[in-house]
This record gives sequence, structure tokens and C-alpha cells, in this order.
Amino acid sequence: MTAGPDFHATIPEGDDRERDVCRTCGFVNYVNPKIVVGAVVTHDGRFLLARRAIEPRRGFWTIPAGFMEEGESVAEGAAREAREEACADIAIDALLAVYSIPRISQVQMIHRAALARPEFAAGPESLEVRLFAWDEIPWDEIAFPSVHWALHHWRAVEGQAAFPPFVNPPGQDGRAPLPY
Amino acid sequence: MTAGPDFHATIPEGDDRERDVCRTCGFVNYVNPKIVVGAVVTHDGRFLLARRAIEPRRGFWTIPAGFMEEGESVAEGAAREAREEACADIAIDALLAVYSIPRISQVQMIHRAALARPEFAAGPESLEVRLFAWDEIPWDEIAFPSVHWALHHWRAVEGQAAFPPFVNPPGQDGRAPLPY
Repeated sequence: MTAGPDFHATIPEGDDRERDVCRTCGFVNYVNPKIVVGAVVTHDGRFLLARRAIEPRRGFWTIPAGFMEEGESVAEGAAREAREEACADIAIDALLAVYSIPRISQVQMIHRAALARPEFAAGPESLEVRLFAWDEIPWDEIAFPSVHWALHHWRAVEGQAAFPPFVNPPGQDGRAPLPY
Repeated sequence: MTAGPDFHATIPEGDDRERDVCRTCGFVNYVNPKIVVGAVVTHDGRFLLARRAIEPRRGFWTIPAGFMEEGESVAEGAAREAREEACADIAIDALLAVYSIPRISQVQMIHRAALARPEFAAGPESLEVRLFAWDEIPWDEIAFPSVHWALHHWRAVEGQAAFPPFVNPPGQDGRAPLPY
């Protein structure tokens, strides 16, 4: 074990804002917004949700979504997350929404998809995975505001082949408490 | 000065892939794809381009675009880049394209915008900023393939109020040489 980095905030040469620089090794920790890729996945009119086995919001339901990795496209990342969290192969047909969550410096790119095969199971980060009819969705046990947004945005363009992606609902910057 | 970080590749506990970990301080350098935010900006039917004062591709022309920073939305980032690189206030009206460039782990989110005021100037990262009619654009001196894509995608939806964002042109993953 080592003691861990010893960051202090300073403006690196040629930069215009403070960054965290390690006093021990000089590493400049450029922090950029992170991309979350995910999908509202349906099958026969029902919605695929996974109950989280990990924090934050363990035990709550979410759409398959997670951090985009290097070396993949946005759509490839969303398909990977569905495989990892729900053991599901998905067919993406549209970019449903781009949500900006400045408080936690995330950009969430949520797609519209269908199950490519009618098979799924809980991956290591999920307690269970289920298909819910709209009226069965456990609205009080949804993990994150953006999951609410994405499900409702899916409904708003149901049956439409092409549409511009949604952004955050008016007044919702990801900072406010759940409006439900 | 310090010697800089001494990274080696190893799989951190609880992770599923190799990350760079500093032998000196133990810092885990999670590397995620970076978001580039930008805009095709027009005024009276002409296109705002900036000639780059910095590497890579110094001296070549680009649309205003750069790395998204923390604490801003995607659209706020695109507007900030137009201010920084072209001293321009822009009004964004659509997300034009989302390009994935896995080779360099970038996601480029390019908007459609107009000048909010008919004023612009070279910022510190630009040698000059100009408005070009379509036929005057210096096609042989464009900085990056995605600038070509964005300009042509702008033309493909000219006059359309709402449309799904474009992705990379077929066969173009950002790895190939310029197809022009």
C-alpha cells in the first residue's frame, strides 16, 4: 500500500483554471465530465428494469446504464451496459435523450432499444431484472431522477421513428430533489 | 519539479479491467472518454470558422469546439467554446451530431447555432476567425474529419426545425484518413 495521492489545487502552466496536482508525483488530475450510456429497453410493450446490487441506491430500480469506457462508441457502450447489468442483447434504434447533470459532472446519453432476444438475467451489479408494464413500474423505488425522465420521454415519442433527443425536463438540472 | 507519475497497468480491486496505477502514490488513473462540445455557427448563410493557433493542426480551420468542463451542461460548454475561440455569442437551436471517435476516446457533441450578435474575433487559441460562404470554405485546410462531417450534416438538414442528430458517416470511425 501507498499513502495515496496528495493533491493540491493550482493552475498548471498554460491552463486557465485550477486543477488538482499531486504534491508527491506531480500528476495533474484533469477532471472532465463523464459520459453515462444507457437505454430504455422494451419487449412486447414492457420495460426492462434492473434492481441495483451496488451503491448508490442499492435496491432501487434503474434502466441499464453505466460509465462509457474507452475504445467504444456511444451506442456500443449502451449495448455493453445492457449485457453487463441485465445479460441482455439489445437493438438500439434511436438516441432518446442527452441529460446534463452538472452537479456531478455527468452527461447521460440514453437510447431507445428493444430486446434482440427475449432473454435476460441479473448481472453481477443487479439483484434482479424484470420486465414491467407501464402501470406496474415501481415508481417509488426508481434509483435516479433521470430514470424517471427517460421512461416518460420514451412514452412521449412512442411510435415515432425519428425525433430530436430530449434534454433535462424544464427546471430539472439534476440538482433538485425528485419532483414526484 | 517532481519526477512525474510512475504508472503501471493493473486491475484494481473490484474492477474488471486494467487501469494505470501510480507506483509512487497509488493513484488510480481512471480514463474515461472525453466530451468535445462544439457548434456549426452561421450568420446570414455563412459559416464561422476559426484558424487554429495551437497544435494539433495549427493553421488549419475548425468550427468552435473543445473539451467540455465540469459544472456546465453540454449546450453551455458549446457556447463557452464559441466565446473562447471566436469571441462569439451564439444561439443554439439543435443538437446536430454525436460523433464517437474510439481511437482517441472522444465523443463530439456538435450543435447547430447562429451568431446572437454579428461580432466575433480571434480568441487566444485562434489565429483568425472568419465567415465563409459554403463555396468559399477552405476544404483542403480543414483541421479534422469531423469538421467536414459537421458542415455537410448541417447542409443535409438545412431548413429543418427538428431532426435526430447525425452520427459518424458510414465507414468513418475517426480512424480512417480523410476521405476527401
